[in-house]
Amino acid sequence: MKLSEFELIEHLTRGLESNDRVVVGSGDDCAVLDLGVADREVLFKTDAVVEGVHFTRESGFERVGRKALARCLSDVAAMGGQPSAVLVTLGLPKQSRVEDLEELYRGIRGLAARYGVAVVGGETTLNAGALFVSISLIGLVPRGKAARRSGARAGDAIFVTGRLGGSIEGRHLDFEPRLEEGAWLCANHSIHAMMDLSDGLAGDLRHILKASGVGAELLARAIPVSREARRRSTLGDGSKPALLAALTDGEDFELLFMVAARDAVAVLDSWRGRFPTVPLSCIGRVEAAAGLRIRDGRGVRELSAHGHVHF
Amino acid sequence: MKLSEFELIEHLTRGLESNDRVVVGSGDDCAVLDLGVADREVLFKTDAVVEGVHFTRESGFERVGRKALARCLSDVAAMGGQPSAVLVTLGLPKQSRVEDLEELYRGIRGLAARYGVAVVGGETTLNAGALFVSISLIGLVPRGKAARRSGARAGDAIFVTGRLGGSIEGRHLDFEPRLEEGAWLCANHSIHAMMDLSDGLAGDLRHILKASGVGAELLARAIPVSREARRRSTLGDGSKPALLAALTDGEDFELLFMVAARDAVAVLDSWRGRFPTVPLSCIGRVEAAAGLRIRDGRGVRELSAHGHVHF
Repeated sequence: MKLSEFELIEHLTRGLESNDRVVVGSGDDCAVLDLGVADREVLFKTDAVVEGVHFTRESGFERVGRKALARCLSDVAAMGGQPSAVLVTLGLPKQSRVEDLEELYRGIRGLAARYGVAVVGGETTLNAGALFVSISLIGLVPRGKAARRSGARAGDAIFVTGRLGGSIEGRHLDFEPRLEEGAWLCANHSIHAMMDLSDGLAGDLRHILKASGVGAELLARAIPVSREARRRSTLGDGSKPALLAALTDGEDFELLFMVAARDAVAVLDSWRGRFPTVPLSCIGRVEAAAGLRIRDGRGVRELSAHGHVHF
Repeated sequence: MKLSEFELIEHLTRGLESNDRVVVGSGDDCAVLDLGVADREVLFKTDAVVEGVHFTRESGFERVGRKALARCLSDVAAMGGQPSAVLVTLGLPKQSRVEDLEELYRGIRGLAARYGVAVVGGETTLNAGALFVSISLIGLVPRGKAARRSGARAGDAIFVTGRLGGSIEGRHLDFEPRLEEGAWLCANHSIHAMMDLSDGLAGDLRHILKASGVGAELLARAIPVSREARRRSTLGDGSKPALLAALTDGEDFELLFMVAARDAVAVLDSWRGRFPTVPLSCIGRVEAAAGLRIRDGRGVRELSAHGHVHF
């Protein structure tokens, strides 16, 4: 049996043990637990980056540490929550240098300090061959307000923050998790569904559509294409068209979310007042018919391009 | 710079970012957070097992999954807490078989079901060479009741559960985490300090002594030596004396704890009523003078034998 990463996770996590503390289990950006905090629920998340898959020695240890934590924070942002504390698990090749690990920790700690996140422990173990960095996170979200993947409804407007594609040029290491933006959205607007973009817009949007039992139509000219994706598209014969890069490149770590169509203008207006330097684009609409379509000058077509898949 | 596992962790986790939610940070069995639950605090723990370090292919995948979770549960037991939910992170070699991962999950899920622990998500990523299994756990402990490593006082009686040494023969995979016992101890007795034995009695006891700023004297004939340690001591010239095995073999996952001397008899009596099949031994006393000593027929000697160190 050979499965993709997503199929494998879905297969292994089907029908997992639950209990009455679980509000959201496997399959969203974070798990949500009700531990009895009066006005809040608890977010729980882990995320691992591995040498040779998510970074190389050339990435620099400080940036690797920063990225490992930032990925987790991005998941918290996508639920509309705030991070409280993290644990760091390192799998170390035998020849690891303490100086490199200090640098790695410097990256984690700098970002943790920026967002008031406590680092409450570290574990190290041997791991033959590759540096393995896993971050575990506990966060909080206002009770009943966590943004899920499953709430998109036909007619909703689809929004995305930032500009997409070409993160491999450096943004996949240095991106700023949209914590403030995610919490603000959930506090001030009725967000039907939200997730962060880690595997490419087209692939990640399909996760929301599947979880919500709907389809969508994107508007090609509304999709915010990054400068990097445009530049890379001009590099020669083998280069990816810029729009395709924006649709399928991984690790954008922007927020993708849906609101009722009647709220769309209010969201855009208030966003521009609150986050004037962060682009927000309305890129399409949710439809009842399953599938993902894209509209451009030549009409509407099924979008077959898959998101970037790590594994 | 070349550091042992403990020195490395201590070095990397010195002066970590904290915030007002942190009750216990790095350096105990679990971190303890105050997230605003009325009568409880939150326990937070991760623990990783790696092929070739903590298990081999011959261990069997179900037992490996079970062990990975049981180690985390043992840490919760050592704080006197109860586990609520876990996340599973798998680093997979390229040639991993889905059937093996199902078995691994079966081991995790069986133990989770036994203790009412929710499995709220799974992540998989590539990891060249070795299977890497990390468990992240959230638990709860009655407010102000978490057993620390730092509370041992001169004059305290030192207790240990079970029988020690020789876990390599199978107990390191199949041990039962002492969850019920740990919670019962903290609920019914004034436990000054507690931890679970993962690196050997002598080494782990030193962690408590260091954290508490005290020393100890053990009574050699009171140390409960396992049948496996005794049997292995008779295997030939290179074999470890049984007492040394009980002092230094790793992965016993028994509870080591201290209570005031005046409470010792009451603890033993009520334990025997509550857990008649689980041995509990008073193995020595805490002393003001630093260092770890052992008393046998020949008198009192400094105990130089170090605990088992993984890394």
